[in-house]
Amino acid sequence: MKLGRILRKSLDQSIPRLVAVLPEQDRVFDLASVEYYRLLHSGATPEAALRLSAALFPSSMSAAIAAGPAFLEAARRCLATTPDEQAVFSLQEVTWLPALDPPVMRDCMSFEQHMVNSFGLENKAIPAVCFELPVSYKINHLSIIANEQEVPWPDYSQAVDYELEVGFVVGRQGQNLTPEEARSYLFGVTIFNDFSARDIQRRETAAGFGPSKSKDFATAVGPWITTTDELDVYDLEMSARINGEEWSHGSTSAMLWKVEELIAYISKVEGVRPGELIGSGTAGFGCGMELRRKLQPGDLVELEVGGIGILRNRLGIPQAQGWMPTPRIPRLAQNV
Amino acid sequence: MKLGRILRKSLDQSIPRLVAVLPEQDRVFDLASVEYYRLLHSGATPEAALRLSAALFPSSMSAAIAAGPAFLEAARRCLATTPDEQAVFSLQEVTWLPALDPPVMRDCMSFEQHMVNSFGLENKAIPAVCFELPVSYKINHLSIIANEQEVPWPDYSQAVDYELEVGFVVGRQGQNLTPEEARSYLFGVTIFNDFSARDIQRRETAAGFGPSKSKDFATAVGPWITTTDELDVYDLEMSARINGEEWSHGSTSAMLWKVEELIAYISKVEGVRPGELIGSGTAGFGCGMELRRKLQPGDLVELEVGGIGILRNRLGIPQAQGWMPTPRIPRLAQNV
Repeated sequence: MKLGRILRKSLDQSIPRLVAVLPEQDRVFDLASVEYYRLLHSGATPEAALRLSAALFPSSMSAAIAAGPAFLEAARRCLATTPDEQAVFSLQEVTWLPALDPPVMRDCMSFEQHMVNSFGLENKAIPAVCFELPVSYKINHLSIIANEQEVPWPDYSQAVDYELEVGFVVGRQGQNLTPEEARSYLFGVTIFNDFSARDIQRRETAAGFGPSKSKDFATAVGPWITTTDELDVYDLEMSARINGEEWSHGSTSAMLWKVEELIAYISKVEGVRPGELIGSGTAGFGCGMELRRKLQPGDLVELEVGGIGILRNRLGIPQAQGWMPTPRIPRLAQNV
Repeated sequence: MKLGRILRKSLDQSIPRLVAVLPEQDRVFDLASVEYYRLLHSGATPEAALRLSAALFPSSMSAAIAAGPAFLEAARRCLATTPDEQAVFSLQEVTWLPALDPPVMRDCMSFEQHMVNSFGLENKAIPAVCFELPVSYKINHLSIIANEQEVPWPDYSQAVDYELEVGFVVGRQGQNLTPEEARSYLFGVTIFNDFSARDIQRRETAAGFGPSKSKDFATAVGPWITTTDELDVYDLEMSARINGEEWSHGSTSAMLWKVEELIAYISKVEGVRPGELIGSGTAGFGCGMELRRKLQPGDLVELEVGGIGILRNRLGIPQAQGWMPTPRIPRLAQNV
């Protein structure tokens, strides 16, 4: 099943709604609406139909996933119904939201070719730990943007780049898992574009704290999640097109770390939760930096992943220069 | 005002409740309960009293703060009432929760002496960027632990350490702020112990992604938040005691980056939100690593900050060794 989120206008506010998507039929099912009308037609009162449909299909994808199998069973039941016409849309008429609202979001480094290329560009050896542990960093999960949403171009960067990745969606709560256990914790896969500001990234990572402002301005996720039953996770074709021209091509078959290893390692002590999102890391030659090519304001970035679809985002124009910190003068430090 | 959260037993589940604390009177006010009885006694129906008190004082501190001045006004009204006896407790009888539930949590590096000490230990120069930008990393905000909660000792570490910090709580939603604007975005200050696993930290940060497993197992926050009207943010005495012995002592007067600069920089593009939590970074000599001293399982770690109180956590015993990743053999890389 393909599951995402759209924004619908209502009386007092716009409301995020969970959808099931049938791209080949050009149909988007507003699941709460389908379920509401289904219950109504089966004899429920409007109040009870609203209560039940909202409980099964809340605005939050993470909350829906947290219900366990009950969520997918209910969504399947909706797709098997003849839906009320007020509950179904064509793909062109909806406003996409990020496919999910993860409680926490990480990005990993699973593609060896990307390590070879990115450390090579800086004439550095690949740190041994990259082969010893599935390292990751956290991206601000509140900076997630949707399919067809414009990418804000930060005032502090002149080098915005894309990163061709898939995103793994956790389906269950768990802690201290083994990879064997973790396999069943994968709910589905989405497309993940970890937009990056290369100039600030080089500067800030020198402090040893990892990336922050260089990643936290925008991560595009969507257009929807494809559940694992429809995919071979280790045989997904990945490609990136800039203004229609293919720049990058890869496959999840090249992953050095398996998704069950990523989930198991992340689950140690801190645990994993329904709706958490784990980026695979960038495919080899999966960003402009590795290709020595630069994006320009207004460029259209399309990531396509087999079995999922196309995630499409246009870069905005650079924001007007705002406040930036004034450098400090060391008072104690002898060696800077 | 001093605001925190406690856990109260109810019929079907335990419920987090917001509290106002008067430590000198040994009184903890369950704000939703105080408000409920206040409304009831003023003539509201039980249903209306419940609805209004739950809306003003939800379980989430971030949600409460998001209401703006209405939250603090309502809390002040509660403290001015003679509260129903079922709504007030002594400090000893409550179960503390983390003082807040931040939507996102970062840690910075504002104390120059800590930079001198920690880079010095590794015989490294301090990276220039530490004086140019207020760098930060994100900690898993879901791994936050409360005052008096035991610290899990990860199976992957033999070197758990404390970090003496204060935590700045954001009060309002904002984006692209200047420091002048950001000053009014500070809601209050809490005590922040960024527990760290030094052995895994040294390994994982070599990849350039910053800390993750070395920080994400536990961050202690509390016992409560003191609102800014009761504090001079730049004159807070900080100390750390291990099993009653003082190991560390510092003051926020030594901060290289001001809190309004931290908030302003973080707010660039991605914005800040009510309830976000920003660690100051470790005070100089504010952790065992800088003192060449190591914590042991069972140690009692107390951080005290003037105007706030004492945050007390005992270290657990090391967890049994679980699954760890098998190193990969490089297939493409020539230089590792």
